[in-house]
Amino acid sequence: MDELIASYLVYDEKGNLEKKAESIALGLTVGSWTDLHALEQEQLRKHKGRVVSIKELDPAGRAAGKRGILKIAYPTANFSSDIPAILTTVFGKLSLDGEVKLLDLSFPDTLKKTFPGAKFGIQGIRELTGVYDRPLLMSIFKGVIGRDLDYLKDQLKEQLLGGVNIVKDDEILFENESAPFEERVTAGKEVLKEIYEQSGSRALYAVNLTGRTSELKDKARKAADLGASALLFNVFAYGLDVLQELAEDPQIQVPLMAHPAVSGAFTSSETYGFSHSLLLGKLLRYAGADFSLFPSPYGSVALEKEKALGISRACHENDSFKTILPVPSAGIHPGLVPLLYQDFGIDSVINAGGGVHGHPQGAQGGGRAFTAAIDAVLQGIPLSEQAQSHEDLSQALNLWGYAEAAK
Amino acid sequence: MDELIASYLVYDEKGNLEKKAESIALGLTVGSWTDLHALEQEQLRKHKGRVVSIKELDPAGRAAGKRGILKIAYPTANFSSDIPAILTTVFGKLSLDGEVKLLDLSFPDTLKKTFPGAKFGIQGIRELTGVYDRPLLMSIFKGVIGRDLDYLKDQLKEQLLGGVNIVKDDEILFENESAPFEERVTAGKEVLKEIYEQSGSRALYAVNLTGRTSELKDKARKAADLGASALLFNVFAYGLDVLQELAEDPQIQVPLMAHPAVSGAFTSSETYGFSHSLLLGKLLRYAGADFSLFPSPYGSVALEKEKALGISRACHENDSFKTILPVPSAGIHPGLVPLLYQDFGIDSVINAGGGVHGHPQGAQGGGRAFTAAIDAVLQGIPLSEQAQSHEDLSQALNLWGYAEAAK
Ligand SMILES: [Mg+2]
Ligand SMILES: [Mg+2]
Repeated sequence: MDELIASYLVYDEKGNLEKKAESIALGLTVGSWTDLHALEQEQLRKHKGRVVSIKELDPAGRAAGKRGILKIAYPTANFSSDIPAILTTVFGKLSLDGEVKLLDLSFPDTLKKTFPGAKFGIQGIRELTGVYDRPLLMSIFKGVIGRDLDYLKDQLKEQLLGGVNIVKDDEILFENESAPFEERVTAGKEVLKEIYEQSGSRALYAVNLTGRTSELKDKARKAADLGASALLFNVFAYGLDVLQELAEDPQIQVPLMAHPAVSGAFTSSETYGFSHSLLLGKLLRYAGADFSLFPSPYGSVALEKEKALGISRACHENDSFKTILPVPSAGIHPGLVPLLYQDFGIDSVINAGGGVHGHPQGAQGGGRAFTAAIDAVLQGIPLSEQAQSHEDLSQALNLWGYAEAAK
Repeated sequence: MDELIASYLVYDEKGNLEKKAESIALGLTVGSWTDLHALEQEQLRKHKGRVVSIKELDPAGRAAGKRGILKIAYPTANFSSDIPAILTTVFGKLSLDGEVKLLDLSFPDTLKKTFPGAKFGIQGIRELTGVYDRPLLMSIFKGVIGRDLDYLKDQLKEQLLGGVNIVKDDEILFENESAPFEERVTAGKEVLKEIYEQSGSRALYAVNLTGRTSELKDKARKAADLGASALLFNVFAYGLDVLQELAEDPQIQVPLMAHPAVSGAFTSSETYGFSHSLLLGKLLRYAGADFSLFPSPYGSVALEKEKALGISRACHENDSFKTILPVPSAGIHPGLVPLLYQDFGIDSVINAGGGVHGHPQGAQGGGRAFTAAIDAVLQGIPLSEQAQSHEDLSQALNLWGYAEAAK
């Protein structure tokens, strides 16, 4: 009997974790057990949930009740192989039932086989860009609402000329008259080609895939036909299954970049919702994202370091699916490259908005400063030393400061 | 210029609500403003966000920082008319940026016009069931995982024979071999017909619509063709836009019942996520649900009364869309009918699982006890008095107790 095992952080007011765990294991599967006749028990045994383990935690300052981590096994026979059915089973009614946070899901192999994982993954993205043995560098369009296509093309070019490998649309740029989706795809392709001919660098431009749910596949296919090199997707404003359907579509041979927009509503509480590593790591990876963006632990919109690292681990850890690229974002400037490299490793994306555009020499200077910082870190040269021969980096460090990684 | 106004509960560590509000209004629209040339300001003015109001609240025990309610106006020119674009605009990056809860959204009329609202609504459901001038009575299948169609038919019949107007599938019943979706629809239709011929009562059976996102429309159309009388939908395991597309489809002429599964992950925190009234009230109503289920304030899986009432108000309040039925659920037994009536009014659904099935006379007795309780409340008769001439009610009150409404 295959089982999906869910781990929950719970706080039980009544202080009886055993009873709580039993009530979940039964209540979310066969309903009741001891009331059933022997024959019914025989018939329903393969549907019965099971308490795997109960670990009591310190009460975290609470006077009464008990905190703990409960692991409950749900037979896969109970649900269809799709994320909505899984979430409804393990965290449907339960999400409404007091203090409970879904920390992790452990899929049996038979269930994993029904998920696509990434089409490209880390290796595929490296092949597309030709960037090996170093973190990729990404930047973000800035202040583009209400701007026309020429403005966007200029901004894209500026970013790429600084050596950026990937540029992403602003996630709040939707279908609009001055720069429609398909025209952004086409214009972006031209700019990328121009840069390639000039520099030999193959970059990606992640165009924001937006609109009504049922239109997304056709839009994405059209974008792929038009030569889009990547798609940005606000998956948490839609649903994980929508991402999965894009990833599964053989006509959408384009890397998918999952944006964390709205996900703060599902992950930020310590006591409710989903863990970061599950939602922005494991589930995005299983559903087919190639990139997972999340708040870096360094900026003003910061995520606690342990949580950011948890997402990154879920992107990288050994599993049946392609590894994918963690993209710690917000508050990133060249002086943070040693920390980024130390924390997220070589198989990650260094992503900056203001840290590229706000450079005294513009986005090009920002890109060059990041590139110099990455070179330095890979060669084991302190940033301060590298800055002596790299003026753009020197200006960036003067402006934003820097932190060397701990030895 | 049309604007969508979002209300947030925020806690600003730096204690500067004005600055926080300005940074949201600009950061989530044009990015920056004072750096722009006069000509650019002219071009972008129609895209600029605006601080509508700032209301400081008491610090709720915090030593530093400030709590408050911020209202920010977003030009509708910035986003396409769909819920994913709206949520990404008003609560995309912002949901990741410290303590912030989205309390409400106020749509301009032009934007409202792009949403469907319910196909049936309260009036339509009353016409379908022939139940006027009283709350509707609903019950829930119990312990159905792994059971066959005959078992389900018997259980459906038992519930309906007690006078229940609506029966819903268990939300954790997915596509399965022993009782597939289409067979449930067909078998349910037969049972409903049989009951109608016997009693003259027209009931609804909400079949759980599940599976992959892109298959749902076809499944729902097929169900409608086969004579389904209602569909249950775990909208929060999919996405609000998916519900909306079902509601908009002219071939799906079937009431839609929104189940709150998973929504606890988005609403339970006092400081993060969405308010209950917005997510389970206003947005469900705009997107096209006919029924909104949510935890009642009385049971063990309880929602605070003010929040439950907030959902109910959002279902009922004057707006461009049909009013819809609030369904406070969990922990409901006949003795709570006076409270339910007092709190949620005549235009609501009284919904019970254990309170129907757990009756000493079985589901039929449970249904009759509820019906007697509803009759009593409508006639202004105390339950204790009604119980003297209604044995099923008497047994229910003995088993579960009762509460008369406050005068
Ligand atoms: Mg952005
Ligand atoms: Mg249920």
